[in-house]
Amino acid sequence: MDFGHYKSCIEACHVCAAYCDRCATSCLQEDDVKMMAECIRLDMQCAQICRLAASFMAQDSEYANQLCRLCADVCKACADECAKHEADHCQQCAEACRRCAEACIAMASH
Amino acid sequence: MDFGHYKSCIEACHVCAAYCDRCATSCLQEDDVKMMAECIRLDMQCAQICRLAASFMAQDSEYANQLCRLCADVCKACADECAKHEADHCQQCAEACRRCAEACIAMASH
Amino acid sequence: MDFGHYKSCIEACHVCAAYCDRCATSCLQEDDVKMMAECIRLDMQCAQICRLAASFMAQDSEYANQLCRLCADVCKACADECAKHEADHCQQCAEACRRCAEACIAMASH
Amino acid sequence: MDFGHYKSCIEACHVCAAYCDRCATSCLQEDDVKMMAECIRLDMQCAQICRLAASFMAQDSEYANQLCRLCADVCKACADECAKHEADHCQQCAEACRRCAEACIAMASH
Repeated sequence: MDFGHYKSCIEACHVCAAYCDRCATSCLQEDDVKMMAECIRLDMQCAQICRLAASFMAQDSEYANQLCRLCADVCKACADECAKHEADHCQQCAEACRRCAEACIAMASH
Repeated sequence: MDFGHYKSCIEACHVCAAYCDRCATSCLQEDDVKMMAECIRLDMQCAQICRLAASFMAQDSEYANQLCRLCADVCKACADECAKHEADHCQQCAEACRRCAEACIAMASH
Repeated sequence: MDFGHYKSCIEACHVCAAYCDRCATSCLQEDDVKMMAECIRLDMQCAQICRLAASFMAQDSEYANQLCRLCADVCKACADECAKHEADHCQQCAEACRRCAEACIAMASH
Repeated sequence: MDFGHYKSCIEACHVCAAYCDRCATSCLQEDDVKMMAECIRLDMQCAQICRLAASFMAQDSEYANQLCRLCADVCKACADECAKHEADHCQQCAEACRRCAEACIAMASH
């Protein structure tokens, strides 16, 4: 993609959204779903706000930075929750969320 | 990303969505916006359905294939319109839409 | 709202999306989350496709009817699943999904 | 709908999103599209963030208030731009944006 200084953050947001969507679906298939409830709840929100942040950046919106700041908060909360669980889908999601949070923080202070 | 047979189509949808968002924004800055009206109109729809298709695939939804089939139709229409315009953002968007249409058609017939 | 023949279906889609979002959140707080897993899974998809269908109708998209047809399928599946559960949030969501499915079917055959 | 203190703001966000989608589409059909470029640009962003705000409220998200604060800013900017144009779709959109901005400000300070 050729999106100037937005490039890496747009990609991080899209990757994070996909991992969150997958993590929520996978959590719902775990034996102990109750233990994953908070993870599912945050995954759902994180996937949504990541895709909107990506869209606002691709539109070069004057609100992209503020949305990225909020997106970073959601990503950090989702990363912290996912990191508590051993399942691969949670660990991979935690890593994607952490990278996205860093990219969004950098973008928000651009 | 590690999304099995969905991987390349999820990525193509995300890339296409970003190019469509950027193309719409760039078209609105052209001298002759009226000439770009149809391009903007399709860009807006294409970006939206591409992001939903990516989300449904990442969720391993039983409706992902049907959504990809419709997404391919939107991508093809958007690619055809974008291809008519010389601007780089249109040509690059046309290419992203074509690739996404192909990936979605392959997914729909999976 | 003043959206011609789209009016009631746009409203039904928005109402359904809100009930699905709320139902998913409420299901995650139930004692037996595992029993609600399928409900949560369908709620998530239903909320997303309902909001896209509403947007495509409001944009008077040539793809609105096809998207409404698929949206109706998701709504029906979500209604059937929600209807199995006694919780108020499930029963109310089932009703919202049924109404939305009917509105989308009518729209798809417009 | 039965969404407690969120009810009126969820509804205002959904109505605003639909008016913004319609306004963007209608602006693209105006004779002088160039004059409407800024209106279209803001409509696109406003529709998107309104639908996400509605979803976060329906999910009772801990980030709903912050998202509503940002949504109010986008709504106000969109209302101010739409209000400059005489077309009915712009005037009606401006009114929907103003009401949504007020509802979101009230929500953000809840």
